[in-house]
Amino acid sequence: MATVPLLTDEAASPEAVAVFDDIRAKRQTDYVNNFWRALAHDPDQLSAVWGRLQSVMAPGALDPLVKELIYVAVSTANGCGYCVHSHTAAARAKGMTPAMHAELLAVIAMASQTNALATALQVPVDDRFTV
Amino acid sequence: MATVPLLTDEAASPEAVAVFDDIRAKRQTDYVNNFWRALAHDPDQLSAVWGRLQSVMAPGALDPLVKELIYVAVSTANGCGYCVHSHTAAARAKGMTPAMHAELLAVIAMASQTNALATALQVPVDDRFTV
Amino acid sequence: MATVPLLTDEAASPEAVAVFDDIRAKRQTDYVNNFWRALAHDPDQLSAVWGRLQSVMAPGALDPLVKELIYVAVSTANGCGYCVHSHTAAARAKGMTPAMHAELLAVIAMASQTNALATALQVPVDDRFTV
Amino acid sequence: MATVPLLTDEAASPEAVAVFDDIRAKRQTDYVNNFWRALAHDPDQLSAVWGRLQSVMAPGALDPLVKELIYVAVSTANGCGYCVHSHTAAARAKGMTPAMHAELLAVIAMASQTNALATALQVPVDDRFTV
Amino acid sequence: MATVPLLTDEAASPEAVAVFDDIRAKRQTDYVNNFWRALAHDPDQLSAVWGRLQSVMAPGALDPLVKELIYVAVSTANGCGYCVHSHTAAARAKGMTPAMHAELLAVIAMASQTNALATALQVPVDDRFTV
Amino acid sequence: MATVPLLTDEAASPEAVAVFDDIRAKRQTDYVNNFWRALAHDPDQLSAVWGRLQSVMAPGALDPLVKELIYVAVSTANGCGYCVHSHTAAARAKGMTPAMHAELLAVIAMASQTNALATALQVPVDDRFTV
Repeated sequence: MATVPLLTDEAASPEAVAVFDDIRAKRQTDYVNNFWRALAHDPDQLSAVWGRLQSVMAPGALDPLVKELIYVAVSTANGCGYCVHSHTAAARAKGMTPAMHAELLAVIAMASQTNALATALQVPVDDRFTV
Repeated sequence: MATVPLLTDEAASPEAVAVFDDIRAKRQTDYVNNFWRALAHDPDQLSAVWGRLQSVMAPGALDPLVKELIYVAVSTANGCGYCVHSHTAAARAKGMTPAMHAELLAVIAMASQTNALATALQVPVDDRFTV
Repeated sequence: MATVPLLTDEAASPEAVAVFDDIRAKRQTDYVNNFWRALAHDPDQLSAVWGRLQSVMAPGALDPLVKELIYVAVSTANGCGYCVHSHTAAARAKGMTPAMHAELLAVIAMASQTNALATALQVPVDDRFTV
Repeated sequence: MATVPLLTDEAASPEAVAVFDDIRAKRQTDYVNNFWRALAHDPDQLSAVWGRLQSVMAPGALDPLVKELIYVAVSTANGCGYCVHSHTAAARAKGMTPAMHAELLAVIAMASQTNALATALQVPVDDRFTV
Repeated sequence: MATVPLLTDEAASPEAVAVFDDIRAKRQTDYVNNFWRALAHDPDQLSAVWGRLQSVMAPGALDPLVKELIYVAVSTANGCGYCVHSHTAAARAKGMTPAMHAELLAVIAMASQTNALATALQVPVDDRFTV
Repeated sequence: MATVPLLTDEAASPEAVAVFDDIRAKRQTDYVNNFWRALAHDPDQLSAVWGRLQSVMAPGALDPLVKELIYVAVSTANGCGYCVHSHTAAARAKGMTPAMHAELLAVIAMASQTNALATALQVPVDDRFTV
C-alpha cells in the first residue's frame, strides 16, 4: 500500500542493506521496520536519516524515553498514523507505562485545545515571553 | 491584535476575575497572561481550561518539566506561535536548560522529517506495532 | 510584509481592477481587503477565487453566518492568522454575537482535543459509521 | 489497530463503565463508540472529555447541528479520519441533509484554498480587522 | 468507506455524468477515480473542481510534471493519504523517475524539518526578505 | 522575538562561527540569515542542517529552482511564515518569475482544496494507485 515497494534485503542495493544490517545490529533484532524498507529506494536518504536519528535519540540532557514521548506528541500533531504506532511501540520498549501513556495523551489533548484557542483568538505574545 | 479585546480585571466579569485571582494565587505572580485575558469573554471556557490545565500538568507519572516539553512539541507542530512562546518560557521556569532545549528541538525536527517521509511513502503499519 | 507588493488600483491590471470594482459593488464598500490586493498579481486566480467565493458563501441549505463560522473553524485549524481575523470580522458583520463566538471557540477547542486523542490512540472507525 | 486495546465493559474499570453507562443513557443506545473504549484506559480523561463534550455541544447560542458541522470542519482540517467519520454520522443524526453536507464541504474547500493563498502570500492583517 | 457512497454512472445525476464523460475523454481512459465519484453528490462542486484543475495543471510557466511534484508536496504536508497516492501516480504518469521521486521526498523532509525548527525558535523574518 | 537570542559572530561558539563562515563562502554573501543565528545555540544541529541542506538542494534529477518551489509549497502547507518568506526569496534568486510564482500558488491552492475534500469525504484509495 506504500507509494513504493518495500524493499527486501534481496531487492535493496548494497548500500541500503548495509544500513539494514546496522539497524539489526544496533537494535539487536532481525526485524527491519517497513519505514526503512520504503526509504531504501534512496540509500543516501536512508543512511542520513538513520544516522541522524541515532544521534538525536541518544541519551543526553534528555533521556531516551522522554525523547520518544516528544516524538509521539509531534507525530500525533502531524497526523502521521504510522509514526504514532511505531513510536508508541518504541516508547513502550523504553519503559513507558500505561500511566505515563495516559498522561502523555492528556498533555497532547490539552495543548491541542489551547493551541486552537490561542489561534482562534490571535492572542498577542506577552512582552515578558520575548525578553 | 487579538480578535477580542484582552479583558482587564475591571472589564472582566466576576466569574472571570475569580479565575484570574486563582491564577495569580496558584502561580504566585501578579501577572495574568494575555491568553487568559482573551479567553475571559467566556468565563465558563476560561474556568474549564484553567481547571483542567492544572490537573493535566500536575506532577504524576511524568514530571511537570517533561509535560512542558511535550506541550512545546505539540504547539510547534500545530504552528501556534503564542503557545510556543508561552510554553518555552514555562519550560525554562521549570528548569529546562539550554542543552535540554536544544535536544527538544532536535527531536521535534527529527520527528517532523520522518513524519513527512512516512506520509509521502504511505508506509503501512508493521503488524508488530498493532498486536 | 507580504511576499508580493499589495497592488493599488493604479498598479493593478485592468482585469484585476475589474474584480476590485466588483468586490466594491457587491460588498457596498470602498475598501478592498489586502488579500485581494496581494492576489491581484494573478488576475485569473483573483477572478476564479472571488467568483467561486460568492457562489459558495451565498445563502443556500446553510445560511451565510453558519458558513462564516465554518470558515473561521477551518482557518483556525489551518493556522491562518490573516484568515482568522478577516472571517471573524465577516462573521460579526453577518450577525455573530459574543455568545455565538464563545460557543464557536468552545467547539473548535473540543474538536481539536478529541482529534488529537483519536489520532494518538489510532482509534479504528466503527463499522456503523461506514455503512 | 488502536495503540491500546479497546476496553469492553468487562475489561474496563468501574469508573470507566460508569461513563459508558452515562453515554448509553444520554444517547439512548446500547452502543459505545470505539473512541470512548480506547479512551477508557484513563477514566479521568474519559470522564473529563465526556463531561465537557456534553456541555459544549448542548443547544445554546448555536444549535447542535451547526456545532456538528463546525466539528466536521475542524476534524477535516486536522486530518482526523476517525473524527470525520463519527461527526459526519452525528451531523446526519441531527438533521444534516445531503444539500447541507455538500455546502459544508464547499465551504471547507474554499477556506482551505484561501488559507493556503493567504499563507503563501503572507498577507498582512488589514487595520480594520484589528480595531 | 467514504462518508458518502461512490456514485456509479447509473447513480449519478446527468450533470455529474457529463463531468465523468469529460474526465474520460480528456484523460483518454475508461476509469474515473474514486475522488470524482465521491464528489459527484455535488455536481456543481464536481464541475468547479474539475474545471479549475485542468486550468491550473495545464502547461504554463511551470511544466505539468513540476506541478504534480508540488501537488504531492502539499498533499504530504496536509497529511492526505488519498492525494499522496493519486498524485504520486499522476507524477509517474507524467514522467517522474525514481531519482526524481527520491529528491522530491528529500526536499519535503528537509523543509518539514526546518519548518519545525523555525517555528520552535519563532525566528523573526529578516528585513531583506520583506523588501 | 525568537525564543532564543539570535547569536552574533561574537556570541556564537567557534563551531557555530565555522558554519557561518561556510554559509558566507558558499552563498557568496556577508549576510547570515536569522534562522542560522537562532539555530547556532546548538552547533551540532546547525552543522547537521546546513550540511544536509546543501546536499538535498543541489542540482540533481530535479533542478534547484524546482526544489525551491517544492520548499515553498511545503512551508506554506505547514504554516511557517518565516520559511515562506525565506524560500520565496530564495526561489526568486534562483530565477522564479512572477508567472512561475503565480502558478506555484495556484497549484498550492488547488491541492489544499482537493486535500480537504478528499479528507472530508474519506475517499478510499483506488486499487490502481497501489499496484
